[in-house]
Amino acid sequence: MAVGRVVVFSGGVGGAKLADGLAQVLPGENLTVIVNTGDDFDHLGLRICPDLDTVVYTLAGIADPENGWGRAGEQWTVLEALRELGGPDWFNLGDRDLALHLLRTDMLGKEISLTEVTSRLCKRLGVVCSVLPMTDDPVATRVLTENGDLAFQEYFVERHCEPVVRSFRFSGIENARPTPGVMDAIEKADVILFGPSNPWVSLDPILAVQGIREALGKKKVVAVSPLVGGKALKGPAAKMYRELGIEPGAGAVAAHFKDLLSGFVFDTIDMEQIEEIKALNVQTLVTDTIMKDRTSRKRLAKEILGFSGSL
Amino acid sequence: MAVGRVVVFSGGVGGAKLADGLAQVLPGENLTVIVNTGDDFDHLGLRICPDLDTVVYTLAGIADPENGWGRAGEQWTVLEALRELGGPDWFNLGDRDLALHLLRTDMLGKEISLTEVTSRLCKRLGVVCSVLPMTDDPVATRVLTENGDLAFQEYFVERHCEPVVRSFRFSGIENARPTPGVMDAIEKADVILFGPSNPWVSLDPILAVQGIREALGKKKVVAVSPLVGGKALKGPAAKMYRELGIEPGAGAVAAHFKDLLSGFVFDTIDMEQIEEIKALNVQTLVTDTIMKDRTSRKRLAKEILGFSGSL
Repeated sequence: MAVGRVVVFSGGVGGAKLADGLAQVLPGENLTVIVNTGDDFDHLGLRICPDLDTVVYTLAGIADPENGWGRAGEQWTVLEALRELGGPDWFNLGDRDLALHLLRTDMLGKEISLTEVTSRLCKRLGVVCSVLPMTDDPVATRVLTENGDLAFQEYFVERHCEPVVRSFRFSGIENARPTPGVMDAIEKADVILFGPSNPWVSLDPILAVQGIREALGKKKVVAVSPLVGGKALKGPAAKMYRELGIEPGAGAVAAHFKDLLSGFVFDTIDMEQIEEIKALNVQTLVTDTIMKDRTSRKRLAKEILGFSGSL
Repeated sequence: MAVGRVVVFSGGVGGAKLADGLAQVLPGENLTVIVNTGDDFDHLGLRICPDLDTVVYTLAGIADPENGWGRAGEQWTVLEALRELGGPDWFNLGDRDLALHLLRTDMLGKEISLTEVTSRLCKRLGVVCSVLPMTDDPVATRVLTENGDLAFQEYFVERHCEPVVRSFRFSGIENARPTPGVMDAIEKADVILFGPSNPWVSLDPILAVQGIREALGKKKVVAVSPLVGGKALKGPAAKMYRELGIEPGAGAVAAHFKDLLSGFVFDTIDMEQIEEIKALNVQTLVTDTIMKDRTSRKRLAKEILGFSGSL
């Protein structure tokens, strides 16, 4: 059965790339990207939503192709002037990127919801599929480490993911409700895809929003492994697994989500883990999962849609 | 008697240039610039203080030499990106300038006073004299025009000073107290100079802050005319006088402040107004008041100090 409506759960770079592949294949009205907001934070009075921005920039075709985050052709004059004035320069605030933060912060200050703000920015940037924050309520991922309880950006940017992690906490999650748009998109979806994003700090926060995990109980869910050859292409996912006493690998990711999954997509390089994954009672698609350019994003998206339709 | 301690009241460009001339002549501890904050406003969530910034940038030697306001070598990437996102682009928000607005807004949000914020920025930029906002309390100049009651920046930037003015109002002024630093500087000053700033919207707001006008009663006050040959070098002062039914000129400025003045400085080109001004019982210095470069700022500052000492 062909897959019509698709919802993707996404963190930053990996999920954004898969979303872009799907956007090349599906009509905009059939694709919804639900994005982690646990990394969102306030910096210099600005509300910054790293994962939402990476998804929007990637779908708009204006993401920096090297970094994956931020904008292509970025300038850094403001950051340079900030440094000169003795301001905080630990967070990479690009000039073009800053315009979006300013505009969003201003709209949020006028009581416009993050969902509506994101929708307006998408429209302005020509993004035709739906990009939805997982919730409009504030959630802040905390990384509990051997060096204390750290805010996510403190762990990720300031401390370069160096502290050894013990667990995670999504502060505010008990009061975070999904927006009607999120629940509606899940309800109507033929398949829910988990992008190749960090299970601990990108996907788990989305699943922890009230009612989302329950809503998936009735749905076909397919996850794409963010770990390839035991390593994350980007970010600290593998390091986190190791520090939590779990051997990082495609199998570990599949096990992480096992209660939810109908299908699991992982890289050919990890072929030897297929039996371990099948033992979780999950169907598998083994393919080249590295999305090095727009063409490979599209190719992977097509394969995943075909696989999902076959389940 | 030589003049030791000097206080200058200043709006933007004209007052800033005189302050820079004085800063070239006086030791930092003997010079205080008290700056109009009636033009301050919020834009995109940022607190913007146009006159304070012009004074600080000018004293730091980093002001744009063409415009008088903003920074030399400014970049406009953020504004360009804002425009692309459909954000407001009527206010010229330079990249380097923006760094200061961000930092100030962040500090103000942490309950640091505008006086303290300004002092920290000055220190960082190597400005050694004191630059003080007229008050830490919010004051907003309103321009009452034939087209309605406009916020100052709306009148000045958005409407290009086109609406015909009827009067001015300084919203919040009844609760605006001068800081202890302002009163102390006035108290200790040998002379108070009114920079060549707009009497209606730069100097009147300072004089309207509780207790400032009264404190000047005991002091030697010398004003420098912002009108030369009946025209303002910058801004709408002459147009305002005309619309209020007063012939614009050095004499009109002297009359504006007549109760306060011991001395008045105006341009040679307006020599024919000397009798009209002397009739106000004010001593005069007639000289070249156009400060086209740093050298002429210094020259004028020296002449004014000499004149003030002779009063």
